[in-house]
Amino acid sequence: MPQYKYVLEEKDVPTQWYNVLADMKTPPPPYRHPATLELLGPDDLAPVFPMALIEQEVSQERWIDIPDEVQDVLKMWRPTPLYRAARWEKALDTPAKIYYKWEGVSPPGSHKPNTAVAQCYYAKEEGLEGFATETGAGQWGSALCFATQLFGLKCKVFMVTISYHQKPYRRIAMETWGGNVVPSPSSETKAGRDILEKDPETTGSLGIAISEAIEYAVTHDGWKYSLGSVVNFVLLHQTVEGLEARKQMEMAGDYPDIIIGCAGGGSNAAGLIYPFLKDKLDGTKPDLRAIFVESTACPSMTKGIYAYDWGDTAKTGPVCMMHTVGHSFIPAPVHAGGLRYHGMAPSICALLDQGIVEARAYHQNAVFEAAESFARAEGFIVAPETAHAVRAVYDEALACKESGEPKVILFNNSGHGHFDLAAYDAYHRKELPDYELDQVAIDRALAELPKVPA
Amino acid sequence: MPQYKYVLEEKDVPTQWYNVLADMKTPPPPYRHPATLELLGPDDLAPVFPMALIEQEVSQERWIDIPDEVQDVLKMWRPTPLYRAARWEKALDTPAKIYYKWEGVSPPGSHKPNTAVAQCYYAKEEGLEGFATETGAGQWGSALCFATQLFGLKCKVFMVTISYHQKPYRRIAMETWGGNVVPSPSSETKAGRDILEKDPETTGSLGIAISEAIEYAVTHDGWKYSLGSVVNFVLLHQTVEGLEARKQMEMAGDYPDIIIGCAGGGSNAAGLIYPFLKDKLDGTKPDLRAIFVESTACPSMTKGIYAYDWGDTAKTGPVCMMHTVGHSFIPAPVHAGGLRYHGMAPSICALLDQGIVEARAYHQNAVFEAAESFARAEGFIVAPETAHAVRAVYDEALACKESGEPKVILFNNSGHGHFDLAAYDAYHRKELPDYELDQVAIDRALAELPKVPA
Repeated sequence: MPQYKYVLEEKDVPTQWYNVLADMKTPPPPYRHPATLELLGPDDLAPVFPMALIEQEVSQERWIDIPDEVQDVLKMWRPTPLYRAARWEKALDTPAKIYYKWEGVSPPGSHKPNTAVAQCYYAKEEGLEGFATETGAGQWGSALCFATQLFGLKCKVFMVTISYHQKPYRRIAMETWGGNVVPSPSSETKAGRDILEKDPETTGSLGIAISEAIEYAVTHDGWKYSLGSVVNFVLLHQTVEGLEARKQMEMAGDYPDIIIGCAGGGSNAAGLIYPFLKDKLDGTKPDLRAIFVESTACPSMTKGIYAYDWGDTAKTGPVCMMHTVGHSFIPAPVHAGGLRYHGMAPSICALLDQGIVEARAYHQNAVFEAAESFARAEGFIVAPETAHAVRAVYDEALACKESGEPKVILFNNSGHGHFDLAAYDAYHRKELPDYELDQVAIDRALAELPKVPA
Repeated sequence: MPQYKYVLEEKDVPTQWYNVLADMKTPPPPYRHPATLELLGPDDLAPVFPMALIEQEVSQERWIDIPDEVQDVLKMWRPTPLYRAARWEKALDTPAKIYYKWEGVSPPGSHKPNTAVAQCYYAKEEGLEGFATETGAGQWGSALCFATQLFGLKCKVFMVTISYHQKPYRRIAMETWGGNVVPSPSSETKAGRDILEKDPETTGSLGIAISEAIEYAVTHDGWKYSLGSVVNFVLLHQTVEGLEARKQMEMAGDYPDIIIGCAGGGSNAAGLIYPFLKDKLDGTKPDLRAIFVESTACPSMTKGIYAYDWGDTAKTGPVCMMHTVGHSFIPAPVHAGGLRYHGMAPSICALLDQGIVEARAYHQNAVFEAAESFARAEGFIVAPETAHAVRAVYDEALACKESGEPKVILFNNSGHGHFDLAAYDAYHRKELPDYELDQVAIDRALAELPKVPA
């Protein structure tokens, strides 16, 4: 058997983040104001985000220093291990060499604290009292409650109602870390009350929860809003994954032919992919393939259009150029709650539009079939979101078996599924729906896109 | 901030287990036959356990080689990290230096696979088809399903009924790894049917589930029984923890004054403690303190007696000299299901009887108070069993604060509590009962101890 794990020491935690915008020939178009649709300035974002993060959002610097205090907290669990999936390769009888970055070792169990910690550091520096945020399946909310607690900040989490009731353990974990969690839509915001009035039985959505969190932040002194994906600074913070993985792939003596990650807003995939994609953008590795994997229930990249859209349902957040199925689209209740976002990170969308990266979508049953195969060989039971990446790896590995090519595949094992086992149970019982895309709903949502001036 | 993690490489996975029996001046008295109460020979155990394990059970060799194949599987997650709990020390304002071995990084999330993997290797070598076992909260069953799957063996798990229904996620995890799980008592064994006939509403117990698993094993060709704690060979396999921790404490430049672990059957605590206790047994470290922590709901070491007793309720397993509250005692339904065993590992009991190690018991609320304090500082939400060790560390750290002594405390963070969050919820809601010891029930159980010939 080959070596399984490539481990780094605490001194190997990256000291700088990598900013892909510096290497893109055509960066994503600028954000627009949610009401006027005019170009957005830093001051427009100041009531929502800490100023240091707004500066990072528009930075063109290739390398941005990671503050010592952030590095110090990251060292609680980083560097994370890089695994060679030797047993899974054997089970799949593939000549492919499969590696994965294992982010499930963080206390909240996913990659999400990589940015939560950084955001809390800047919030503390700015003298804030607390952060409001949204969460779907709960991975992001867990990460932010964990991080706010470490920095002595308060945390208010609007959790999509269906997940709040289906995943009580996530809520309890957030409370154990000191967070205050309410189901969304809630009666605590105007956005929530408006939705509840129209539809008291609604199961909620990430778009609604974002609207509530933004409203809560801007109407409470000393509070701002924290976002767990989509925007540039979040993807930036996640590049610690790929920067570590580069060193670890060197230890393994390999370089990936294909890198794969699941994508809801896109941050875990981009965090692993961007530091390698640098080599494609500068021409060193022109053949490198990068695949972002989404759910057929919310196929922004594979079925949506590339257009300006609001980031949230109540149209209070910035308007971004992105692949979208429309801000008012409410996706089917797939278990991968983190993939139920109507849009996608603008930087990923620009790269996709330019043909530099690829996108793919899967149905639930295909996803859990691959995840169970992975669990039985490698042991780890991955999150439903992550399982989408696992399916893409599974297909690429079987393609290698077919072609006989010993390709090197790297993927982001972005989190464990310990709070999502009902999904595996439904798969075992053959009760997992493969949601068909509702084109009528998408068309209706797309008709509501903003009319942005040329 | 000091260094947080002391990590080893795969080549540092131990190549030999440490057998404490070789260094005990007075080893535990031999096992007795469950029916005749005469001394037990290896042949008596042959229908129950693989022969290689029976040989390990009675071995007096100090060092026992770990087969290459077992090392290879252990490398899937071992060596596990040793953490310095620097943030918790600060939160407790203690001069104590607190270290913990973090076993939650294994795919099943606890220390249990350390022995599950070894047992499956020997079972495969012997040509067996499968293992039957019991599980309480599910940590042991998870570990065995994970390990049997890797070795191509089948797994039948009798899961204590109350946990089967309270912890469905554990059951689903076992099924995801290919195991077959039934609530115990079940109708699949005579032992189970007898109990169900007397009390159809019983919530079950570990003692009953052990009886069912043994019966299933001895009545099915090619099947044997796998036990997750208590006996010598299990504690032997767990010494990889302490052997790694010795190297890691050297890296940290410290040696523990106090080592602490929670104890149901005693294997996680012994696994960490025994390789250090060697130094006390040979006189090098006479002042080393080792504390085994149990639940007040099942206080075998602190309220039971030191006597011969059956290991299981149906009196089909070996009779051992141990601290016991009686094989027929059914403990209150504390969340720490793994601490609801009526006895304790015979080697630990002999050391306790000889005054070489210490024992302590805690109520649930004290335990979760400390676990939440730990989670808020260190991030990790530990299992209810492990939380008992955390409470003992908390008390020792506060004693150091009182006395001003900078003692070095090492404990076994034996597993995560991701499947046990209902316990934290009950704690938050102040709905967690502190079960008072039912002395009448213990006295009744102790009256049923076997009358072993002198």
